Amino acid sequence: MDRVLSNELSAHAGERVRMAGWMHRIRRLGSGMVFVHLRDRGGICQIVVESPEAVASIDGLLVESVIEVEGTVVAEAQAKGGYEIHDPSFTVLSAVTDALPFPINKPVINAHLDTFLDYAMVGLRAPSKQAIFKLSAGVQHGFRAVLDAKGFTEVTTPKIIGTASESGATVFPVEYFGKKAFLAQSPQFYKQMMVGVFERVYEVAPVFRAEPHQTVRHLNEYVSMDAEMGFIKDHTTIMAVLTDVVHGILAYLSEHYTEELALLKVEMPLAPEVFPQIYFPDAQQWIFEHHGEDCRGEPDLAPQHEKWLGEWAKETHQSDFVFVTGYPMAKRPFYTAANPDDPRFSNSFDLLFRGTELVTGGQRLNKFDDYARALASRGMTQEAVASYLEAFRFGMPPHGGFAIGLERFIMQLTGLTNLREATLFPRDMERLQP
Amino acid sequence: MDRVLSNELSAHAGERVRMAGWMHRIRRLGSGMVFVHLRDRGGICQIVVESPEAVASIDGLLVESVIEVEGTVVAEAQAKGGYEIHDPSFTVLSAVTDALPFPINKPVINAHLDTFLDYAMVGLRAPSKQAIFKLSAGVQHGFRAVLDAKGFTEVTTPKIIGTASESGATVFPVEYFGKKAFLAQSPQFYKQMMVGVFERVYEVAPVFRAEPHQTVRHLNEYVSMDAEMGFIKDHTTIMAVLTDVVHGILAYLSEHYTEELALLKVEMPLAPEVFPQIYFPDAQQWIFEHHGEDCRGEPDLAPQHEKWLGEWAKETHQSDFVFVTGYPMAKRPFYTAANPDDPRFSNSFDLLFRGTELVTGGQRLNKFDDYARALASRGMTQEAVASYLEAFRFGMPPHGGFAIGLERFIMQLTGLTNLREATLFPRDMERLQP
Repeated sequence: MDRVLSNELSAHAGERVRMAGWMHRIRRLGSGMVFVHLRDRGGICQIVVESPEAVASIDGLLVESVIEVEGTVVAEAQAKGGYEIHDPSFTVLSAVTDALPFPINKPVINAHLDTFLDYAMVGLRAPSKQAIFKLSAGVQHGFRAVLDAKGFTEVTTPKIIGTASESGATVFPVEYFGKKAFLAQSPQFYKQMMVGVFERVYEVAPVFRAEPHQTVRHLNEYVSMDAEMGFIKDHTTIMAVLTDVVHGILAYLSEHYTEELALLKVEMPLAPEVFPQIYFPDAQQWIFEHHGEDCRGEPDLAPQHEKWLGEWAKETHQSDFVFVTGYPMAKRPFYTAANPDDPRFSNSFDLLFRGTELVTGGQRLNKFDDYARALASRGMTQEAVASYLEAFRFGMPPHGGFAIGLERFIMQLTGLTNLREATLFPRDMERLQP
Repeated sequence: MDRVLSNELSAHAGERVRMAGWMHRIRRLGSGMVFVHLRDRGGICQIVVESPEAVASIDGLLVESVIEVEGTVVAEAQAKGGYEIHDPSFTVLSAVTDALPFPINKPVINAHLDTFLDYAMVGLRAPSKQAIFKLSAGVQHGFRAVLDAKGFTEVTTPKIIGTASESGATVFPVEYFGKKAFLAQSPQFYKQMMVGVFERVYEVAPVFRAEPHQTVRHLNEYVSMDAEMGFIKDHTTIMAVLTDVVHGILAYLSEHYTEELALLKVEMPLAPEVFPQIYFPDAQQWIFEHHGEDCRGEPDLAPQHEKWLGEWAKETHQSDFVFVTGYPMAKRPFYTAANPDDPRFSNSFDLLFRGTELVTGGQRLNKFDDYARALASRGMTQEAVASYLEAFRFGMPPHGGFAIGLERFIMQLTGLTNLREATLFPRDMERLQP
C-alpha cells in the first residue's frame, strides 16, 4: 500500500490508507479515547484511536516517536484539512525513550536560543521553524529563476583560495597540504573573471568571514547570492536588475509558499516598481536635518542611520526597500568604480530592507590600467591579485554586480530578531556545534 | 538603442541594431575588406567591414578586445544563423594590448592543461569550454527540478565544522578564532539530521577532501549533489529515486542544452528504465571468471574492475549505468546499514557511469542503539559525534541517500579525460591559483 501524506487525505475519503511520520502530539482522554497528531512532510493530521488494542499499542509512547499507521480516511468538518483517520492500527518504527529538550508541538517554541541551537536537529522539526527554512529555499529558487530568465549562467567558484583576497584580516586560514590557504570571503574576483566568459553569472554559495563580531546580524559563515554582469551603463543598470530580482523573489514566494507565509504571519514587504534611492551625502544631510545627528563627512552609515532611512522610505515612498547610492570611495574595495562627476564617491550602492543592509553592489573597474592605479593609490601590490588582474589584460566590458545575504533576507522578511534563527546550523565566534 | 544578441538577429532583419561583445576573430583580406566575428552570450555572428573609416577604426585591434557595434542586419544564407551585420560602426570598449597566452578561437584549444588552468579566466571564453560549464549548470538545474517535484527541501549545511566527522585524516584544518575546526568533507551528518525535520532534503554544495591523491579523477574541492530521504524500505528505494534523478537530469539537458550537447558532440548515455545491478561478491566472481583477475574477498573494487563492469552493463544491458550493491561493511562508514540477510555486506551501492564511480549511496542506521553498537565495534567514541547522535534519540525513520559528484558527471558525460577540465578553478595538492 503506497504511503499517503497528511495533505493528500481528501483524495482518499472512505479508503483505508497507510501513513507514516512523527507522533507530533498525543492527547489521552479519561474515557480511554486517544487523539494522535501525525506529522509528515505534508503537514499534520489527526488520528482518532478508540479500540483498546490500538490504544494499548501506543501506550507510553513519547512524542516524536516515528510511527506507521493504517486507518480509514473520514471526512470531519472540525479536523484540519477536513479529514481525519479512524480505526487505526499502529506500527512503531522508532520509539523515543528520552524527554525532548523542549516541547516542539506548541505554537511558540519556548527555548533559550542557545538551547535551541544546541538541539537544532530536534527543534527545527517544529512546523514554524520548518517554515522559515522552506522560505529560505524559496528565496534561492526565486533568485535562480529570475536570473536564469535573464540569461545568467550559474557558476561554482572555489572556496579554498591561495591568496587572501580583499583584506587579509577577515579570512580564515586553512592548512592545505603544508601550504597556506584561506577560505573565500566572497566570490567577487571569480565572478568578475566569469563575466569575461559568460557575461552574466550568479552563484549561491557559502562565504566565510573571520570578522570578530558577535552581534545579532553577523555570522561567520553565511550564504551569499551573488550576481555579476557585463555591458552595463553604470551601477544604475545593476540596480534595475536587482530590483527585478527582489520583485521576482517576492512573487515566487507568494506563488509557491502561501502556507509558510501564513503560518509565520509574514507581512509581505512594500515593494514599489522603482525603489526609492538617496545619494550618500544627501542621506547624511537628511539625517542631520531630521534626526539632529551630524554624521556628514563620515565614510559609512551606522545601523541607526540605516534604520532612519528605512523609516523615511516607508513613510514617504511606501517602500520597505531603499537604495543608498554613492558610498565614499574610501570605504569601498579597490575594484570599485568612482562616480565620474565626483570621484570622492563611488558608483556603488547598498539596498536596505526594512532599515537593514541587505545587498551591496556597484560598478567595478574594467580596465587593467585603472586597476594598476587603484592598487597603487591604496598601497597594494599587483602580485597579491595577479591572476585576477590577468582577466583585465584581455578585454573586460563595463560590469558590476551585487551580493544578497540570504539569511538577512529571511530575517527581515519574517521579522526574526537574530540572524541565527535564519540559519540551520549557525557559525559564530563561539559556536561550532552542532 | 537596446542591445541585440547574436542569436536574436532574425527578429531584426533589415534594421539598424546595436551589438556588443568580444572580437572573437578578425580576418583582414588583401582587398581591404575585413570580417569580424563578434562573440556575445548569445553566440557568434559575422560583421562585414567595408568602409575605409570602419576598417581604420579597428586597425591593429587584437582579438578579445571588447567592442560595441552599430550595423544593419542582413540575411545571408552562408552566415551562421542566416544573418550577418553590414555597414558597421565600431566603438572600442576595452582594447587588448597583449597577445593571448594561447588562441581561443580554434575548434580545439591547443594548450597544456596547466597553462590552460593558469589562464582559465581567458581560456574558458572559448565556446567549447563555455559549453562544458553550461552543461554543469544544467545538471544542477535538472537535479533540483527532479527533487523539488518529489517533495525534497533544499537545505544549506555548514562547511566549517567543529569535529572532524567521518575520518580525521581526510579533512582540512581551519584556524577558527583560536579554536580547531575543519572543512566539511560531506554534508552527511547534517543531511541525515535534516531527514528528521523535512523527511526529504538535498543540497548542492562544495565538499573538501584532504586526500593526498594527485590523479585525473580526484580533486580536493568539488561539488557534491547530496540527497537524503526518510521512510524507505531499504537501499532499493534510494536506487529507484536515484534512477529517476539520472533520467531527469538527462532529459533536462536534452531539452534545454541542445546547442552545448551538439557543440561538444556528446553521445547521450544509454539509460534504460531500470539500471542493471550486480551484487558486490557476484561482481568479483564475474570479474574472476571473465577477466581472470581474482579479486574475490577484497573489500573494494579497483578502477579497472569498475571499467569491466561498465563494459558488461553496456554490452549485456545496453546501459551506461550500472549499480553495484552490497559493498562490504568493512569499507563503508559506521552509519551504514547492513544487509539483514548477510551482515558482512551492506545495504549500500555505488552507481557506475561509463565504468567510473559516479554516485555512492545506501541505507543508514536509524536507531540510537544501533549507532552505539556500530561505533563501539569500530572503536569510535560517541563523544566525537555527540550532536549527530542526538537526532537518533528523538525518532528517526528508516532513511538513506546518495551523493553525486557533479564534475564526475560532466567528465563522463562529455568524455573529458581529466576532472580538472570539468572544474572552473580546480583545487588539487599543487594548485591553489587562480
